[in-house]
Amino acid sequence: MSKEITSREEDYSKWYNDIVQKADLAEHSIVRGCMVIKPYGFGIWENMKAQLDKRFKETGHVNAAFPLFIPKSFLSKEADHVEGFAKECAVVTHYRLKNDPDGKGVIVDPDAKLEEELIVRPTSETIIWHSYKNWIQSYRDLPILINQWANVVRWEMRTRLFLRTSEFFWQEGHTAHETSEQAVEETVKMLDVYAEFMEEYMAVPVIKGVKTESERFAGALDTYTTEGLMQDGKALQMGTSHFLGQNFAKAFDCQYQTREGNMEYVWATSWGVSTRLMGALIMAHSDDQGLVIPPKLAPIHVVVVPILNKKTMERKGEMDALVEKLKADLGTDVRIKYDDDDQKRPGFKFAQHEMRGVPLRVAIGPRDLDNGVLEIARRDTKEKATYPIEEAATIIPKLLEEIQQNLYQKALDYRTEHITKVDTFDEFKEVLNGKGGFVSAHWDGTAETEDKIKEATKATIRCIPLNNPLEDGVCVFTGNPSTQRVLFAKAY
Amino acid sequence: MSKEITSREEDYSKWYNDIVQKADLAEHSIVRGCMVIKPYGFGIWENMKAQLDKRFKETGHVNAAFPLFIPKSFLSKEADHVEGFAKECAVVTHYRLKNDPDGKGVIVDPDAKLEEELIVRPTSETIIWHSYKNWIQSYRDLPILINQWANVVRWEMRTRLFLRTSEFFWQEGHTAHETSEQAVEETVKMLDVYAEFMEEYMAVPVIKGVKTESERFAGALDTYTTEGLMQDGKALQMGTSHFLGQNFAKAFDCQYQTREGNMEYVWATSWGVSTRLMGALIMAHSDDQGLVIPPKLAPIHVVVVPILNKKTMERKGEMDALVEKLKADLGTDVRIKYDDDDQKRPGFKFAQHEMRGVPLRVAIGPRDLDNGVLEIARRDTKEKATYPIEEAATIIPKLLEEIQQNLYQKALDYRTEHITKVDTFDEFKEVLNGKGGFVSAHWDGTAETEDKIKEATKATIRCIPLNNPLEDGVCVFTGNPSTQRVLFAKAY
Repeated sequence: MSKEITSREEDYSKWYNDIVQKADLAEHSIVRGCMVIKPYGFGIWENMKAQLDKRFKETGHVNAAFPLFIPKSFLSKEADHVEGFAKECAVVTHYRLKNDPDGKGVIVDPDAKLEEELIVRPTSETIIWHSYKNWIQSYRDLPILINQWANVVRWEMRTRLFLRTSEFFWQEGHTAHETSEQAVEETVKMLDVYAEFMEEYMAVPVIKGVKTESERFAGALDTYTTEGLMQDGKALQMGTSHFLGQNFAKAFDCQYQTREGNMEYVWATSWGVSTRLMGALIMAHSDDQGLVIPPKLAPIHVVVVPILNKKTMERKGEMDALVEKLKADLGTDVRIKYDDDDQKRPGFKFAQHEMRGVPLRVAIGPRDLDNGVLEIARRDTKEKATYPIEEAATIIPKLLEEIQQNLYQKALDYRTEHITKVDTFDEFKEVLNGKGGFVSAHWDGTAETEDKIKEATKATIRCIPLNNPLEDGVCVFTGNPSTQRVLFAKAY
Repeated sequence: MSKEITSREEDYSKWYNDIVQKADLAEHSIVRGCMVIKPYGFGIWENMKAQLDKRFKETGHVNAAFPLFIPKSFLSKEADHVEGFAKECAVVTHYRLKNDPDGKGVIVDPDAKLEEELIVRPTSETIIWHSYKNWIQSYRDLPILINQWANVVRWEMRTRLFLRTSEFFWQEGHTAHETSEQAVEETVKMLDVYAEFMEEYMAVPVIKGVKTESERFAGALDTYTTEGLMQDGKALQMGTSHFLGQNFAKAFDCQYQTREGNMEYVWATSWGVSTRLMGALIMAHSDDQGLVIPPKLAPIHVVVVPILNKKTMERKGEMDALVEKLKADLGTDVRIKYDDDDQKRPGFKFAQHEMRGVPLRVAIGPRDLDNGVLEIARRDTKEKATYPIEEAATIIPKLLEEIQQNLYQKALDYRTEHITKVDTFDEFKEVLNGKGGFVSAHWDGTAETEDKIKEATKATIRCIPLNNPLEDGVCVFTGNPSTQRVLFAKAY
C-alpha cells in the first residue's frame, strides 16, 4: 500500500495529495472547489474543534450563529473590506426553481429574482456588526465575546484539499470592546490561544508576529499571525487575529455610551482558524509511508492487530479477553481500535494503519500469548519493541506522550535550522531557493520594496515577530536604513 | 420584566415570539427568513447537539462534511425528490462581483455566470449519494453510517424563529446498507434514538409512528416520525427517519457486489432533527413568566444571587467563599452562575433568570448567612424553600432531577388528556377546535379522504402509531371500513 505514495523528494505536492486521499481524509467533490471531508479526516478536525472550543470558552467566549447570506450592499460598507472580499464570491440571485416547460428537469424561475442579491459569506464581519449595532447601547453591553463555527465560501479557481477550497470550515471570533487597549489585548490573547493549541496539540511550532500593511486582513488596523513551517521549506499562515479598530463600528454606525456619558464607536477584533490547519498538520509531520499525526489529535491512538491464521484462530478468545482488559486498564483517554476483521491480512492492516498515521500499533501472535508479551510499534520512529503484557497499560500512555514530544521537537529542530539570517540579496535568493525556510533580513519598511522582493523571488514578509529585537542595518534590497529584521518566506 | 410577555391565553403565537426574544434565544436577521441564534439560545442547541452526537457515535455512526452546494441537475435525478425539494431554493448563478462602473458599491459580474447553477442544499441525499457511488463497490464497503451537522436552506415566505426559517441548522444521517431489512432496522433504530433523547433530555413525550403516503419525505418508501404535542394542542413533528429503499441508489447508479457475487442496488436511510427542536422545547414547557427548560439541557442550572446593599456589602467576601465552596462541592456536572454584578438589583436579576428559565435560583442575604441558611426557588413550580447551607450540595442535584421528572410528567399528563377517541365527524371537529390535541379516529386509508379532512379541518394525519392495535371500525369521514385508528391533529 505504501508503494502507492509519491515520495516527498520526487514531488512534494503530489505526496501531499496522495496522503490526503490514501489516508481517507478528504476528496474533491463534483462541485468545483468544494471538498468532501471523509469520516477519518473529519475525526481529526472534530478533535481540533473540541480543543479550540474548550479554550475559547475558558477565555470567556460564547458561541452563536449568524446568517449564511450577506446582502450585497453590506460588503461595500467598509472601504478596504470590499476590496478584499467582494470579488470571488458565490452570488445568490434567485429563490425558486420550476419545472422546465420543454421537458424534464428544472430551470431557474425568472420571476423569482431577488431584489438585492445575497452573497454566501466569505467572512462575517459585516453581517455580525449589523447585529451588534442593535445589541450595544452602553458600556454595560460590552465586551461582547462571540465565536461562530461556520462554513464560508470564497470562490477559488485553483484549489488544494484543505489548503485552498471554495467552501471551507472555520471558526470566526468577533468581539466588541470599550477601548482600543481592550481590543488589542483580546487580539493578542487569542493569538496566544492559537499558538498554544498549535504547539501543544498540533505539535507545530509557530512564530507569532504582526503582518505588514500589504498582508493585513481587509479592514484591519493590525493583523497578528501564527506562522508555521512545512517540510518543503514553505511557510503556512495557520491562524490570524485582527485588531479592527473602529472600522466596522463606523461602517455600521455602532456607538455606545461611555462610562463618562459620551458616545463613542465600539472597538473590534476578529480572529479565525480554518480547515487549513488540517493541511498544516498533515504537511508538518507526515513521511513517505503516509500520514503522521500527534496523538493528542489522533482519532485512534492504538490499533491492536491479532496475528492469527486458520490453525491458530482457536486462540482468538484469549486475544479478545486481553484487548478487553487493556481497554479497561487504559480507560477512555486512550482510544483503542481492535482490528480483528478476519477478511484482511495483518500485513494489509499494518500498511493501512501506517498510512492513516495511527500513533501506536500493537501486534500479538499465539507465541506472544504463550510468552506473555506483545509488540508495540511507533508510527513516528517506526521503532518496535516487545513488552510484557502486564506493562502495556503503563507503557502505552508513556509512548503516546513521547510521540507527541518527539513530533514537536523534530518540527522545532527543523524550523530552527531553517531560519537563516542573510545580509545581501544574493544570499537571500540563494537561501530561499536552496534550503528554503524563513529568511531573516533587513527591510526598509516600504510596501514598494516588499512588492519588488515578492516579484523577484515569490517570497513575502510572513511577519514581524513579536518582541523582535531592534538592530540597525540596511535593507537587503534597497540598502536603505532599517531598524529590525523581518521574516521572509515562500508560503502556501 | 415578566409583564412584558403576552400570556398564552391572550395570544399563544405572540407569547412564543416574546419568549424567544426576551429570553435572548434568537432574533430575525436582516436577511429575509434567516435567524441569528444568540449565545443563550445557542448554548441550549449546543447541549442538544452534544447529547445527540454522543448517541449517534454510540450507535456506530461517524461524522463527515459534504458540500454546501448541489448542481441543479442533481435535484431532478430522483423523480419524487425533485417535486418535494426543487422549488423554494436559494440559487447561486454567479461567482464574482465587480466594482460598479457607475460609482460606488459592487455589482454582479455578468461575465462570471456559472455554466450550471448551484443550489444551496435543502437536504443532501443527492450530493451524498453521488459520493457513495464512488465509495461502494462491494458488500465489504457496507454499511456506511455517516452523519453530518450542517446548515440547509429552504426558501420560506412566512417564517417563525426556530420553527420555520429559510436557513436552519440540523443533522442529517445518511446510511447505506446491503439489505432492505438492515436499512429498515437502521431507520427504526434512529427513530428510537431520537425518541429517547426527546423524552429523557427534552422532557417531551413523543408518539412514534409512520407517516401516510401523502406526508412522506420526497423520495422515501416510508417515513417514521416522532410527534410531540405543544401546549396549544397542536402537534409538532420533532424528528423523522426515512427508509429510502433503493431510490437514491438507482438515481445515482450505486450498485454493489453482493456476498453471492451479484450486483444489487444499495439500500438507504436518512434521518434528521433540526433547530426546530428548539421551538418544541420552548413551547412544551414554558409559562407566562418566560422560558422553562429541563435541567439536562439548561446552559445554567443554578444562579446564585447575593442580596446585598451598600450597608451589607461588607459581607460580600463571605458570600464569595460560600459560592466557591458550593461550586467545588457540586463539581462540574452542575453549571452554576454567580450573579454578583452590583450594577443590577436582585429583583431585576430574579426576573431575568426567570425569563431565561434557569431551573434553580439560590438567594442569600446577610441574615441567611447569620442563620447558616439559603433560599432555593424552583423555576418550574415556583416553590421556594429554605435549606441549611451545608445541605445545598446534596439538595441541588436532587431538585434538578425532580424538575426534569416533573416537566416530563406534566407534559405526559397533558398529552394523555389530549388524545381523544372520536367516532363521528362532528365529534372530530368539536374536539379539534375545542380541546385540541390528537384525535384518534378511523380512516379509510385513502389519500383522497385524508385530503378532504385536511381541507375541511386543517388537521393532518400525524402518524399511524407503531404497534397500533387493530380494531374494526368505519372511517370517520366516509363511513368506509377501517382496520385501525390513526392520529389526526393540527400541526406546526
